[in-house]
Amino acid sequence: MPKLLYPTSIKLDVQSLEGFSVELKPYDAKKPIADEDTDAEFLVTWANSADNLKDAAQRLTKVRWIQSLAAGPNDVLSAGFDPKVKVTTGSGLHDHTVAEHALGMLLNSARRFYEMRDYQLQGKWPGHLGGPQPDRPAGAFTTLRDANVLIWGFGNIAKKLAPWLTALGATVRGVARHAGVRNGVEVYGEDKLPELLAETDALVMILPGSDSTRHALSAERLKQLPKHAWIVNVGRGTSVDEDALTAALEKGEIGGASLDVFEKEPLPEDSSLWKAPNLVVSPHAAGGRPQGAEVLIADNLRRILAGQELKNVI
Amino acid sequence: MPKLLYPTSIKLDVQSLEGFSVELKPYDAKKPIADEDTDAEFLVTWANSADNLKDAAQRLTKVRWIQSLAAGPNDVLSAGFDPKVKVTTGSGLHDHTVAEHALGMLLNSARRFYEMRDYQLQGKWPGHLGGPQPDRPAGAFTTLRDANVLIWGFGNIAKKLAPWLTALGATVRGVARHAGVRNGVEVYGEDKLPELLAETDALVMILPGSDSTRHALSAERLKQLPKHAWIVNVGRGTSVDEDALTAALEKGEIGGASLDVFEKEPLPEDSSLWKAPNLVVSPHAAGGRPQGAEVLIADNLRRILAGQELKNVI
Repeated sequence: MPKLLYPTSIKLDVQSLEGFSVELKPYDAKKPIADEDTDAEFLVTWANSADNLKDAAQRLTKVRWIQSLAAGPNDVLSAGFDPKVKVTTGSGLHDHTVAEHALGMLLNSARRFYEMRDYQLQGKWPGHLGGPQPDRPAGAFTTLRDANVLIWGFGNIAKKLAPWLTALGATVRGVARHAGVRNGVEVYGEDKLPELLAETDALVMILPGSDSTRHALSAERLKQLPKHAWIVNVGRGTSVDEDALTAALEKGEIGGASLDVFEKEPLPEDSSLWKAPNLVVSPHAAGGRPQGAEVLIADNLRRILAGQELKNVI
Repeated sequence: MPKLLYPTSIKLDVQSLEGFSVELKPYDAKKPIADEDTDAEFLVTWANSADNLKDAAQRLTKVRWIQSLAAGPNDVLSAGFDPKVKVTTGSGLHDHTVAEHALGMLLNSARRFYEMRDYQLQGKWPGHLGGPQPDRPAGAFTTLRDANVLIWGFGNIAKKLAPWLTALGATVRGVARHAGVRNGVEVYGEDKLPELLAETDALVMILPGSDSTRHALSAERLKQLPKHAWIVNVGRGTSVDEDALTAALEKGEIGGASLDVFEKEPLPEDSSLWKAPNLVVSPHAAGGRPQGAEVLIADNLRRILAGQELKNVI
């Protein structure tokens, strides 16, 4: 009977994985796999240590399918497993939680909670942010109502986020490699970025990390945004040219940026982002809590036992 | 021809008030009314100075209707106008903006952006808030998904807010003087508060200021909430017993509180709220930007000219 190893680094409802002719065994994702479990054919990973994965790549000689619960399982891919091992991602398990974080970052930016906090820590009342205010003034991002929000990287997270933004009164458009209407949102190709960026009040970046997305938000692209525009990044840090962003913030050429991901994480102590004006640091906190993992694992387990194609194959 | 005075303290689309046999004249809400305008019968107020209103109460001898754009026009009511003058409120003009602020405060609390900011200001990466996290752990308010949100004071702002919370996955219930189902939300009477508070992850308070709501959230009520529950107040500061709240926060008997309103505003320098743990200060910023004022003014102008009952009469 084939063996599936599941990690104790996440609370899984193991009963939801029962019903197959498969032996289910827990393992510690921070330690070497036990000798008696090196015959496992299926491996679920979550928050494994690099050493654990490197060791598993050497000793799990029968493994043929690895189900990562991460959206981008770079850790598994760089551990040295045989290229014949099928790796499936946890894409979809993080949509809701990442979209919620992105919404929170947008509201934090528009309603300036970060600036209120700066005042609070000094025991000062930020009177300029309260009391009578202009309503939806031109040249400022103060609310999602009637704001133009552009989502760059229009996959499942964007599909979750877009209707919330629409309900709050925003006009949502998308950018992706393939143009078209998705879930009622007009999604444009990247060739339309100059026009789209020029009309954007808030840009939400949800690009995956890859060579083709590196520094997608470049100095040139930043210049195409209005001066009041905010950037929210919940994709990958490499998609933003951090030096160009810092310069734009310091010169007041951009409204602000709320970043959950960075080129280097943790953000290095000497990074100029820490103190850049209107730059909000979130410590890669958007995802990190897979939801509905059991359904995905069980589905792919059924598929591999039936000899069918797996979901979320890399 | 009767005269209507409108304030220059807010950008109104005056064309949207035309079409009546009424003279429309602007006035400065921070200065005494000009002598030639003291014959005005209708007065619109927004962000008027106390002196302006006191003076107007003495000199506008023909005034018979005052349209405030504030939700709670205490300034007009305490200025000394003849009790026969009809005062109508700006109730409804602030629903969207207050609801958006409340949603932002809920997400700021659940996703702990305020705590991330504290770390950022010290140049520190708040690693404990990022990376792999437990998903919706019991005894913590970490997301709106599956959270029990109780809205205390279920009027038009709540009706705006509730569907957004539902879309984000929260279970929403309400408390008001009159029980019943409103816009699909189950609203309970205040007699049910002990049971409801005990099941609450986040309590949103939208109570008006009055003698009957003073210290509605008392030490006793605070004890009925679970230890992890958060409080968001976008109603009136007087509805929260601030001393009891501070004590509960300091003893860790409550998860946290995000307050937009206070018993005294600006919050006094010596208030212990400034530094209470997990207390987030917002400077009465939820409303303050009336939306759609022209429609309300024109509707009430039409009504008073027709001898009909006004909307939003106090």
